[in-house]
Amino acid sequence: MIKNYSYTRFNKTKTNNIKTGFANRGMGLENDINLANEYYRIHDIAYIYKKPTPIKLVKVDYKIGLIKEAYFETPSTTDYNGIYNGKYIDFEAKETTSKTSFALSNIHKHQIDHLINVKNKGAISFLIVRFTILDETYYLSTEKLEEFLKNNERKSIPINFFKEYGTMIKVKYAPRIDYIEIINKLYFGGNNHDEEKN
Amino acid sequence: MIKNYSYTRFNKTKTNNIKTGFANRGMGLENDINLANEYYRIHDIAYIYKKPTPIKLVKVDYKIGLIKEAYFETPSTTDYNGIYNGKYIDFEAKETTSKTSFALSNIHKHQIDHLINVKNKGAISFLIVRFTILDETYYLSTEKLEEFLKNNERKSIPINFFKEYGTMIKVKYAPRIDYIEIINKLYFGGNNHDEEKN
Repeated sequence: MIKNYSYTRFNKTKTNNIKTGFANRGMGLENDINLANEYYRIHDIAYIYKKPTPIKLVKVDYKIGLIKEAYFETPSTTDYNGIYNGKYIDFEAKETTSKTSFALSNIHKHQIDHLINVKNKGAISFLIVRFTILDETYYLSTEKLEEFLKNNERKSIPINFFKEYGTMIKVKYAPRIDYIEIINKLYFGGNNHDEEKN
Repeated sequence: MIKNYSYTRFNKTKTNNIKTGFANRGMGLENDINLANEYYRIHDIAYIYKKPTPIKLVKVDYKIGLIKEAYFETPSTTDYNGIYNGKYIDFEAKETTSKTSFALSNIHKHQIDHLINVKNKGAISFLIVRFTILDETYYLSTEKLEEFLKNNERKSIPINFFKEYGTMIKVKYAPRIDYIEIINKLYFGGNNHDEEKN
């Protein structure tokens, strides 16, 4: 189970480094988010980082600090967290090749539980989902995700749910995926962070 | 440089698993904090996790998800973060065998910068330092750490600074290291989290 998952994760990372064929669109969601986070840090807007993938160590050469055998582990939480404007930010980001829906099997149940737990403590928590073939990326708050889970037996969230209850993240120049702009609209009265800085 | 640091980190973890000789005191700071975080999660008090150590992958067997060669990397941020009572929490925890001072070489400069950056954005950020031979553990806010760095040329923080400007964390039964109790006193008018739950 752990090995299986790990394998998927590793391939996911690898896929992100391969151009998808769309001109200037091939960087992958993870790279886009890492670049956005770097942009936010450089401009002192937000401090949000991707957590390292947890690794189970089996054999290590102590003398030179070399890991000789290890396995990927299932993460306990989401991939990204940090702080913006006094608020704890926490989210998971996923890509899907489906054109019609996002399969919930893409996220571990304990990751959804984590998003709900931190939201209940006052976090701004959410999902970022990219439909890669459509080249559409959506922000979906944990509040809306929770509503969907309460009211539906379905194992996948239709794209129309994202269109209706989420927010499409438009690709810009810098940062490409400006998810803080969405947070400003939803939680801080719509000012964008560039205006705040003036 | 990276290899050197990694080696230290790995040994540190290893040391934490070895009993130090004090009866019931030998669990190591990292274990104490992990247990405290587990206690806070189980009781729905706070959601704070240790970040995995970042690993640089060199050789991976894709078929079975086995890492055959990898090295420890220097972490970009601190080891622990999460949410409590609507506030973003971020801290670093260190042990020292010195009886008189805590050497600043124990923390990377970019980790101190990170603590200050998130504090400036509204985080509750701090250091937890254990003087293992004295068996004394202190909470030191980033505000006080920053003051020390501004007013001192010294490369280490004397234990008296911790006594005067920090707060000693008394060892309890559960959680052993109740750092949230200190946060309550400093930031939330002194209520402890057990009272809040009632």
